[in-house]
This record gives sequence, structure tokens and C-alpha cells, in this order.
Amino acid sequence: MRLAHVIDTDPERAEEVARDQECQWSTHLDAILDSPDIDAVIVASPTHEHFSQIMMALDAGKAVFTEKPLGASLPEIDACFNKASSLGLPLFVGFNRRFDPSFASLAEKCHMGAVGTLQFIRITSRDSPLPSVDYIRQSHGIFHDCIIHDLDMLRFITKEDPLEIYALGSSFVDGIGALNDYDNVLVTLRYPGGLLASIDVNRFAAYGYDQRIEVFGNSGMIQAENRTPTSTVLSHSQGIVRPPIEYSFPSRYRDAYRLELEGFLTCLQHDLPAPISHHEVRMSFILCESAEQSCRESRPIRLDALPISVP
Amino acid sequence: MRLAHVIDTDPERAEEVARDQECQWSTHLDAILDSPDIDAVIVASPTHEHFSQIMMALDAGKAVFTEKPLGASLPEIDACFNKASSLGLPLFVGFNRRFDPSFASLAEKCHMGAVGTLQFIRITSRDSPLPSVDYIRQSHGIFHDCIIHDLDMLRFITKEDPLEIYALGSSFVDGIGALNDYDNVLVTLRYPGGLLASIDVNRFAAYGYDQRIEVFGNSGMIQAENRTPTSTVLSHSQGIVRPPIEYSFPSRYRDAYRLELEGFLTCLQHDLPAPISHHEVRMSFILCESAEQSCRESRPIRLDALPISVP
Amino acid sequence: MRLAHVIDTDPERAEEVARDQECQWSTHLDAILDSPDIDAVIVASPTHEHFSQIMMALDAGKAVFTEKPLGASLPEIDACFNKASSLGLPLFVGFNRRFDPSFASLAEKCHMGAVGTLQFIRITSRDSPLPSVDYIRQSHGIFHDCIIHDLDMLRFITKEDPLEIYALGSSFVDGIGALNDYDNVLVTLRYPGGLLASIDVNRFAAYGYDQRIEVFGNSGMIQAENRTPTSTVLSHSQGIVRPPIEYSFPSRYRDAYRLELEGFLTCLQHDLPAPISHHEVRMSFILCESAEQSCRESRPIRLDALPISVP
Amino acid sequence: MRLAHVIDTDPERAEEVARDQECQWSTHLDAILDSPDIDAVIVASPTHEHFSQIMMALDAGKAVFTEKPLGASLPEIDACFNKASSLGLPLFVGFNRRFDPSFASLAEKCHMGAVGTLQFIRITSRDSPLPSVDYIRQSHGIFHDCIIHDLDMLRFITKEDPLEIYALGSSFVDGIGALNDYDNVLVTLRYPGGLLASIDVNRFAAYGYDQRIEVFGNSGMIQAENRTPTSTVLSHSQGIVRPPIEYSFPSRYRDAYRLELEGFLTCLQHDLPAPISHHEVRMSFILCESAEQSCRESRPIRLDALPISVP
Repeated sequence: MRLAHVIDTDPERAEEVARDQECQWSTHLDAILDSPDIDAVIVASPTHEHFSQIMMALDAGKAVFTEKPLGASLPEIDACFNKASSLGLPLFVGFNRRFDPSFASLAEKCHMGAVGTLQFIRITSRDSPLPSVDYIRQSHGIFHDCIIHDLDMLRFITKEDPLEIYALGSSFVDGIGALNDYDNVLVTLRYPGGLLASIDVNRFAAYGYDQRIEVFGNSGMIQAENRTPTSTVLSHSQGIVRPPIEYSFPSRYRDAYRLELEGFLTCLQHDLPAPISHHEVRMSFILCESAEQSCRESRPIRLDALPISVP
Repeated sequence: MRLAHVIDTDPERAEEVARDQECQWSTHLDAILDSPDIDAVIVASPTHEHFSQIMMALDAGKAVFTEKPLGASLPEIDACFNKASSLGLPLFVGFNRRFDPSFASLAEKCHMGAVGTLQFIRITSRDSPLPSVDYIRQSHGIFHDCIIHDLDMLRFITKEDPLEIYALGSSFVDGIGALNDYDNVLVTLRYPGGLLASIDVNRFAAYGYDQRIEVFGNSGMIQAENRTPTSTVLSHSQGIVRPPIEYSFPSRYRDAYRLELEGFLTCLQHDLPAPISHHEVRMSFILCESAEQSCRESRPIRLDALPISVP
Repeated sequence: MRLAHVIDTDPERAEEVARDQECQWSTHLDAILDSPDIDAVIVASPTHEHFSQIMMALDAGKAVFTEKPLGASLPEIDACFNKASSLGLPLFVGFNRRFDPSFASLAEKCHMGAVGTLQFIRITSRDSPLPSVDYIRQSHGIFHDCIIHDLDMLRFITKEDPLEIYALGSSFVDGIGALNDYDNVLVTLRYPGGLLASIDVNRFAAYGYDQRIEVFGNSGMIQAENRTPTSTVLSHSQGIVRPPIEYSFPSRYRDAYRLELEGFLTCLQHDLPAPISHHEVRMSFILCESAEQSCRESRPIRLDALPISVP
Repeated sequence: MRLAHVIDTDPERAEEVARDQECQWSTHLDAILDSPDIDAVIVASPTHEHFSQIMMALDAGKAVFTEKPLGASLPEIDACFNKASSLGLPLFVGFNRRFDPSFASLAEKCHMGAVGTLQFIRITSRDSPLPSVDYIRQSHGIFHDCIIHDLDMLRFITKEDPLEIYALGSSFVDGIGALNDYDNVLVTLRYPGGLLASIDVNRFAAYGYDQRIEVFGNSGMIQAENRTPTSTVLSHSQGIVRPPIEYSFPSRYRDAYRLELEGFLTCLQHDLPAPISHHEVRMSFILCESAEQSCRESRPIRLDALPISVP
């Protein structure tokens, strides 16, 4: 399998990438829909294009890999999955963090009982560098832009849906509060068996891209810590100094991005189902919406009162 | 200053300690109240004795050091402080964790601006070993027995009172749920300036006495980690292994217990006020009550609606 | 720049790699010597082929990248560099560890004075997994196979040559002593200004590929530690467990291998000199020979008595 | 058991300590020799007084605890042990580091096979703060003042004597070279079974009192790392910062000093032999002398050629 075609609305950019990748290029998805040589489409366009492009690609009989979100609403998400299902095509949603080797190892160890019965999970997710206010204005807010990843990670670890969600939010960064958005959020969740979870999120950590998970169970605790780009340690009279953690998502999740694409290829080559289900994708969306509602209304939202079953 | 007299209702035990400490002993507090050689009393009796003993000692003109709690209600707490105040006697409440060198260093660094404006604080507080159900039955519940320490720690770091508190609780340990108590609790708090905080507490960590704090601010993060009793690291084919963290509070807070008593002596010798104020002690009590109420009623409690000013 | 041609004496293997890399293939170096499209040759053949292939490639006007060693003797090393020099062609010797991000960062910080005047350096270099006795029989011994890398690293950090070298060796692995070789070696070095250094080497660390450096100076210490493949930490009743360090050189030095090839390309594209000089390469060879002689004769060898200047 | 009497040539100081400890005092050892209430003497005087005081105390029938050294020569060491032995009195030599909990745990784990057959040991021992030149002038040099502790530690771990010792020394600190002493020393040792060891010592580490051990065996590695006084970790844009390690020996070995005295009391109370034997004490002395000779003569010294058996 190889990259056959690059599409970008900017012809110069499309051509440049095509030259580098030694492949074809064009400026519109139409150009490849009828091509029998193309088996699959990777949707990595701006968020608001995702839905129509996914639907076009599926209609043309292509397998689809897409970064989240699939669409702007539950009906759009459901439409994508239902079409993929009825046509028997893989629809692979790239929640990249599931493919991070440390997070994947943590989840696998939890599933194998390394810490016993899960009682508490904490996810810390702090962005770096600070995005521009322009970016944030178009980001659909911190819940849909950031926290959806953490909600998916909880699902990945627990294989369960929560009963209740509650969120607190505040804003410290100039301009973000004015957008009616938050840059500092704490989400808490309660699960059926008594498991509790918290997600603490911030738009900007001055010390780098801080992404950690801690899972506590009756027989132990497992954590996934941050990494530093190098392993140097400097000791001097003021203390013991290690370099800052990874600066941002491209370096932090370098392996994860590679592995999720390899995972997509494996699905295609061995005719396997995509690892992230319709139910999981729509639950992340529902939890996101509920968390934001909880934050705005300052009250816990019970999930069992919502219509969450897959239509 | 030296230990002059030991009191225990069990005469054998009192005598044994007295022999070891080369001091006098008796079986009732009355024995020392009239003694002009005794300047101060350390109250380390069972919880339900605290209030009457504190009051007796103050009435006798003695300075008092006491482990928390002072009493079983706000009026009792207020009575102790008001009596100490009217008599001009020090009343030193031993919230031992404030004297832990790592937590004290963390708080001092926060106060000096090491992480900038505080945005998020997390306290993790997991007990070890698991107390007996009999102990728990008499403990006044996880909020008053454990979480009050963490609420005091938040006050120590922030020097502020929260606006809102919300708690989730569940029970995994046999017998604790039957007591209508919890062994797994997550408390979240919102502060006036937008600061958020969480406290995650468990009655039993299989890997030792887990006591950590993390403070995030706009210019950095500071953490106080656990310690291991020795600094050995064993590398073998299965991984890199350090010894378990401290087993329980006597070893974990050994320095803190020594330092809080030294702090009490310093107050006496230099006629300084006790470091923990009436307002702080009663706020910890109020927050405890509110957290427990929040947990039982599954709703956030707003603190600004409560009558929290010192009477 | 791209890979144009793969050469392997095994045609099946050559073809397979060529298919994967989308390039030409053949079974002998002759096939590309006259090709005007080929600017450079990467010599990655068995050690005993290096010298003749380097000389052939240089004679054909190609720039050369080669893994160490260049040849089996000082005259062969000198012949390669002298031919490259007289023809004005880059001869890039791949001492891969110089390109490891952590070691490169450590060296750069030392050069910038982060620890002041260097007083002591320790290099730990333990192999994993244990090579077969067959491999070791053909390896030219632990000094030329392993320790030469550590001697080059000392040069990389110090930019100096030592005055004296002393080595102790022993053998614990079945079969290695019978080859008159060592698997456990400690080398010590003295430098002109008083700097001392040690290299401790072992053919087999049961816990993984252990590669560390520590540099001590009058104002501090800098260390480059091992890395673990994932950042997970498991706490249970027996201790705190991290995963084993990297298993062997391909994963440990993955980045270094990529970066040294990029460094070679940069030299070619910008007409820069190769970063590792003729003097450095021959000094590593001389120190290797002297260390082995010291070990066999149980006496320190003074370097200033040897004819070490570049001919 | 309790401290009964303090002796100091300075009466003011003796009195002050006696008041604090609630015991008797005098200015000369004679004062207590005939006292039937005194069972044991702790010799903590300046080094040159040790021998005569140990002999006087033993002659008076007292058990003796002494910090190293016992005397200035092998005959003096032998005289002390022989007298103690003939009188049936305990002579407890306080090599404090054996009682450090981390080093003791490391040694015990080695003895229990945690790393298999020992192949390489490294001891790092760097002093802090820098002693004055006056102190160093009276210190009998870095070998007898510092390195003897590390040689004893090797014995403690290996339970063996080495075959050969070699030392390199240099001086970076003003004034130390002029005393014909060293401040930067690297000692290497070879043991009968092929075990190799190195000791790297420095009179001054700018980042604190650096005391570490690493033991490598065929099935793993165990290390004892430094400790920091608090467990805080500060992350900011320049890196991840821990506080400096312990500043000097009183805080680093606080527990060790307490535990070695407790060990002495245990020997007295249970009539146990002192844990450090005559042979061990004299071997440390012999190795010290040999290491210094090796350093001055720039050649390895074979120990099997020396008269090392206990007379």
C-alpha cells in the first residue's frame, strides 16, 4: 500500500507534497472518486469539511480514515457509520492517543488486571503552546477540541460508559473568556461499579505538552508519565535539572500518528473492523456535550437519562 | 522545655511511658491542672475526649497543643478558640501535614510565585494499611477522618476559601458501604479567582501510603512526590524496580510530627500566635460537612450561601 | 537525494530491499562505480570488506559514508583518509553515538561550560542481548568491537587525547575466555590537565542495552541516562516498577542512525567537512590497541611515548 | 543504657553538652576509667588521640566504640584488636556507611543474589562542602581520610579482598596539590573471580554530597542513588527541577550515625561480636596504603604479594 494521491485546495501546496511523496495531486476530492486504483481515503481536512468528504468517499466505495470529528452533530456521526456499515466499508476514526505506546501499554495492563478492580482514574491533559484566540474561536470550544480526546481515553481504559458527568470551568487567558469559552476545566465522572474519574485540562502549560494518566485499583496503581526529548540530567548548586517535556503534540504523539495509520492499513489488509466503534464515537460526542452543559449550568448531568443508544 | 508528666487511663501504660521518658505519670488530667511547673498540655487522646480536655487545660491556664479535631461541632470548635483567645493562651491545632518538609516547601514556593497564578491543584491522599471496620465505625467517616487534612492543605497552599464544593463517593471495601461510609472519594472545589482543585482519596492503597500534591499555575507546575524508605534501584529482565513508598503515616510523617511539636515549643518560647487560625480550623470543618452533604445529595454545595464567618 | 542502488552479494536479498526501497540492485560494487548518477556510497558491509570498498568508491569519485572501522590497521585507516583528502571527497565515519540526541546534548553542554572544568568522566556501555560465540570469534575482540565507540565518545566530549590508558579485563561468559577475549572490562584514562576517565564495559546486561555517560566538573555534573520504551510506572505491594530499558542498539540508537545519515547528506549538500577527523579516527584505533595491550600486560601504557601524529 | 559521662578537653563545652544530655562531665578520660557504672566508651576525639584512648579504655575493661581510624599504623590497629580480643571486650569500629539504610539494603540484596554473580562495582564518593586547606593538611590525605570508607564498602558488599589495586590522582583545588595531596582520584581493583571495581572520589561536588553505589551482576544491576531533602519537583519553561541532594555527611548519614550506635548497644546487650572484624579493618588500611603508593608510583600494586594476614 502506498500514498497515491494528495488533495489540497491550494494547488502549490498539493504539488509540493506530491513531489515530495512521489504521487499524484489535485485540488478536489472528485478527482479520485472514480479511480479504481484508490482503495482508501485519509480525511485530514479542516473540521467542517469532514462530514461531506467522508460521505463522498464512502459513496465512492473507499475505506475512510478520518481524524475526529466525523461531523458537527450526532445525526452526522450516525450517518457516517450507518453508511459505512451498509456498504461494508471500514470507517476508521483516528483518536490518536489510543495508539500512543505508553497509553496503549497502560490500558492493556489495566485490562489484564495489573491494578485489580479500577477505582479511580485521573487524566491530565494540558496543551502547549498556547493557541491563538483566532484558532480558539474556530475550535468549537475546549470540550469538543480537547476534552473529547480524554473522554475517549477513559472509554479506551474502562470499556464502560459513565453514569454521571460534572464539569467546572474557568478562564485565565486573555480573550478566551470573552469567547464564552474556558481554558481551565475539571471534569469528574462516576461509573456504574463505583469507579470515579477526573480529567483536568488546560489550554496552556508553560513547561510543555503535559499528557499523563493515572489509574488506581485495589491492588495497585499504574501511571503513564511525560517524556523528555533527551535523557540528560544536570546537577548544580541550584538543583537537579532535566530538560522540559515534549513541546507539543507533533513530537509527543509522533509514534501514535504513525501507529494509527499502520493500524488503518492493517484493517484494510486483513479485512478487520476498525478498532473504534460507532457507539464509542457517539458516546464521546454525547459526553462532550453533557460536560459542556454541566459546566454552563453548574450541575451534574446524569447520562442514564439521555437517549444514548445507537439508532 | 521537657516532658514532665504523662497521662493515660491505663496505669501500666502510663507508667511504662513515664519510665522511658523519665517523667511523672498519672491516670487523669486533673492530676496536673494545678501544677505550676506545667505550662502546656498536649492532647493526644481519643477524638471524643478532645473537647473537654482542651477546655479543662485552658481553664487551668495551660497552653494547648491538640491533634484535630477540637470537637464534634462548630460550637465546640468556636468555644475552644474563644476561650483560648479570652485567656490569652496559645491553642495550637496539629494539622501535621503542614509541617511535612516537602509539602511546606511546595506551599512556600507557591506563595513566592514559583508557578505564577494558581489555576489547578490536585491532592492525592490514599491510606495504608486498610483500617479495620471497627476503626472505621468510630472514625466519624472518611470526610472527617481523612479528607479534612486535605481540605486544610488546600487552605495552607491557597490561603483562600472555596466558593463551591462537590463530592463523589463510592465503596469497594467489604463492610464500609454497610456503615453508610465511603472508601473512594473525589472532591472538587471552585475558588473565587477561577482556581479549581480536586482531592482524590482512598482508604487503602496496596502499594503504600500515597500522599502527593500537584499545583499548576500559569508559569509552571510544582509537585510533591512520595518518598521511598531507601534509594535502591534494581534493574533486571522484568524491569526497573524501586522499593515501595512509605508504608503508613508514622514513617511518612515522622519529620512532620517532630516539626509540629517543635513549632508548638517555638510559639511558647517566643510568645508567637499558633500558625493555624480559628477561621482556618472552622472552615475545614464546614467544608468537610459540606463535602459529605454534597456526596449524599449528589449536588454541588455553594459555600457563599453558608454562615461561615467566625462568631 | 535518494537511495538509487542497493548492493548485496545475495541477489534475493538485494532484490527484496530494492523492491521495498524502489531502487536498483546488484551483487557487486563494480555495478555502480561508473554511474554518473551516483554521488555517494554507504559502506555497511562486513568489517573485513570495508577497506577495499572504501578505496574503490573513493577511486571512482564517490563520497563515502562508512560504519567503523575503515580498515584493520593504522596504515589502512591512513590510506583511506589520505585518498579522500587528495581527491577532495568527503569520508564520513559513522560513529553513531555522537548523533544520539542525549549524548550530543551532553557533549554540547559540556563544551558550553555547564559543569565547568571537566574532572572526571564515566562511560558505561553494556551490550544486550549476548552475542553468539561465533559472532564474538569474528569481532576482533571487545576492544575493537565495543570499546572503540566509548573511546570515540571520550574524544567527542573532551576534544583531547589522553596521556595514559590502563585496562582490566575478565571473562564470565562461557566460551569467551577460551577465545582469549574478555566480556567484562574496565578502562581508565588520564588526561593532560588532570581529567580522569573510566569506561566500564560488559558484553551482556540482563536488563537491556545499558548506555550511560556521566561528566563531573568543578561546578556540577551532567549525566545521560537510559531510556525506557514506554513511560509507564506500576506501583504494587512489591515496589515501583518501570519497564526495562531499550533491548538493543537498533532501538536505542534509532534516532542516532537516522541523524548520522542526515548529517552525511548535509555534508554533501553544503560541501561541509565530515565531523569526525582523520586524527580522531586513528586515535580511537591507537587507544584501542593500547588498552588491549595494557590489559594483556597488566600495566598502564603511556600514550605520549607512541607515534600518534597523523602521517 | 544511657549516656552517663561526657569528656572534652574544653570544660565549657563538656559542661554544655552534659547539661543538654543530663549527664556528668570531665576533661580527661581518667575520670571514668575506674567507674564501675560505665560499661562502654565512645571514642569520637581527634584522630591522633584514638589509639591511646582506645587502649586506655580497653585496659580499664570498657567496651569501645570508635570512629575510624584506630591508629596511625598496622601495629597500632593490631594492638587494639589484640587487646580487645585477649580481654574479651567488644571493639566496634564505626564505618558509618555500612549502617546507611540504602547501602545496607543494596549489600543485603547482593548477598541474597539479586543481581547474580558480581562482575562490576562502582562507588562514587564526592565530598561537600570543600574542606579548608588547613583541615586537609591534617587529614592524612584523601586516601586515609575519604577513600578508606569506600574500600570498606567494597569489602562490605563483596566479602572479599582484591588481588590488585591501581589509582590515578590529580588536583584541581588551589592549595591541595601543594600539600602533595589529591582532590580527584580514581581507584580500580581486580578481585580473584574476575570481579572488577572502581572508586571515583572528589573532595568537592558543587551540587552536594554525592554518595552512590552501583553493582552489576550477570542477572541484573542494583544501584543506591542520592536522596534529596524534599520530594518537590518544579516544572517550568527551562526544565524540570528537583532540589539539590543532601549538602553534607551529617544530613546524608543521619540515619547511619544513629543506627551504628544502636548496633553498638545491641552488641553490648546481647553479647554479640562487633560486625566489622580485625581482618576487615586492617585490610582497609593496607588497601589505602597500597592505593596511595600505586598513585604515587603510577603502577598497579598486587595485593597477594603483601603480608596481609592478621598477625
